[in-house]
Amino acid sequence: MKVGVIGIGLIGGSFAKDIKRIWPDSSIFGIDSNEAHLEQAIQLNLVDAKGDYDNLTDAELVIVSIPVDVLVRELPTILDACGDDTVVIDAGSTKKLICETVASHPKRRNFLACHPIAGTEFSGPSAAFEGLYEGKTNIICEVEKTAFKLQERALELFQKLNMRIRYMNPIAHDQHIAYVSHLSHISAFMLGKTVIEKEKNERDIFDMAGSGFESTVRLAKSSPDMWTPIFEQNKENVVETLEEYIENLQKFKQLLLDDDYQNVYNEMNNTNRIKQILKGIPLTKS
Amino acid sequence: MKVGVIGIGLIGGSFAKDIKRIWPDSSIFGIDSNEAHLEQAIQLNLVDAKGDYDNLTDAELVIVSIPVDVLVRELPTILDACGDDTVVIDAGSTKKLICETVASHPKRRNFLACHPIAGTEFSGPSAAFEGLYEGKTNIICEVEKTAFKLQERALELFQKLNMRIRYMNPIAHDQHIAYVSHLSHISAFMLGKTVIEKEKNERDIFDMAGSGFESTVRLAKSSPDMWTPIFEQNKENVVETLEEYIENLQKFKQLLLDDDYQNVYNEMNNTNRIKQILKGIPLTKS
Repeated sequence: MKVGVIGIGLIGGSFAKDIKRIWPDSSIFGIDSNEAHLEQAIQLNLVDAKGDYDNLTDAELVIVSIPVDVLVRELPTILDACGDDTVVIDAGSTKKLICETVASHPKRRNFLACHPIAGTEFSGPSAAFEGLYEGKTNIICEVEKTAFKLQERALELFQKLNMRIRYMNPIAHDQHIAYVSHLSHISAFMLGKTVIEKEKNERDIFDMAGSGFESTVRLAKSSPDMWTPIFEQNKENVVETLEEYIENLQKFKQLLLDDDYQNVYNEMNNTNRIKQILKGIPLTKS
Repeated sequence: MKVGVIGIGLIGGSFAKDIKRIWPDSSIFGIDSNEAHLEQAIQLNLVDAKGDYDNLTDAELVIVSIPVDVLVRELPTILDACGDDTVVIDAGSTKKLICETVASHPKRRNFLACHPIAGTEFSGPSAAFEGLYEGKTNIICEVEKTAFKLQERALELFQKLNMRIRYMNPIAHDQHIAYVSHLSHISAFMLGKTVIEKEKNERDIFDMAGSGFESTVRLAKSSPDMWTPIFEQNKENVVETLEEYIENLQKFKQLLLDDDYQNVYNEMNNTNRIKQILKGIPLTKS
């Protein structure tokens, strides 16, 4: 199988690693605006060679894993360049604008809109690893707009990766993901900011942080290049989640100010059931 | 060595496990208001026998690991019961009220105020494990108020556990810990609450949560029995951290509303240095 990976970082690189494992005879070319990353991807054996858009025409599978602003800009050109038998899948954390962008593209049937819910706070080719997608959820939007034969090819990959497929419309995707992913990132970034501002002596953070702060703030290590355009494209939903989060924090603060510790207890006790909700989530690489 | 552990959960039980490993000849008795936990602690070999306050008089080391409200209530009685050669250490997440409570106790010199910065989101005897304290920070307050010989005995334990000791006054402790620990817990609890409220269909959380939400919300599994009195005792500092956190979230929301994505980027980019700050923190059991 001839495979193209456009954007060869954590997401694209991890797909490439697994594809090599599943289909050892596949040939993978990489395209990346960052020349150093491309060199590194070749050295790490993530891809066999550099490529360009001319190579897309006879590729059977193309994975586009680039920041969502670049994705919206490049996807029409990528579809222009791909062949009739090419399936192009993306990995963007937003889906509405991306689907709208290619809605009337003549090669819309070559595109499958995907969001594999997987990642770490690290980025670049060196962050890629085999098994990132094992047991993870992959949200597919507007599946009916993709040619059936091409859907099948993509699904074969996801099945071999042992991913769990969920079909959703792009608007619902963007609403749900704002809560379970985008808000978590802002919460972590602002937690990190608040602590850094206060603790001018970084040695104190380091010494006192313990395990709690570290895991809660983990996502604040994430790439601003990736996340800024996500928040831009999903602004409306993200602002809504932020308003609800801020309101809950203000209520909690008021309970403390009122010395209403019975309700402080109740707030935490009611949220404890997150334990049961999360029980089914596969453990992730820490 | 005769050791007493008052409150035989994650914290006390993990101390007991390590003490058994370091001093196999030690005899450890457990005291707990929860009879089932006490039985379980014996079955798990965390302690050798049940005890009561009468046993404290000839104990060489007593670890008090109970919720901080119970600690403030019980500590004077525990000191009353202990012998001249007993060192009593606590593990409370607040220090000011605890130190004030025993400031003029006739056996103040038998008490060493400690806060081992270690734990997981789990609780009870079954959550205890060997090595919880390995490489972790232990904050000791008002060390000068403890008899030198008794300090030495406690420090020998911490040294054998490979803990890093930091001396701090109780007021500074409570201020710093509000930022690096207490705020993280509220941030996680309210994130969990916001998502649960919105996502009535818990299947959606489960399917979409991925790795990001899971780690950010992890602390929302923590025990309300333990955390309510911590927030009560450290109310003033906790409210201050919450105000700053809420303000940062509101500023971030405003940047989104203003479409000021350059500053959205800057906010995240500036906080990215949390990576370097956290680099030295030992990896924790996930």
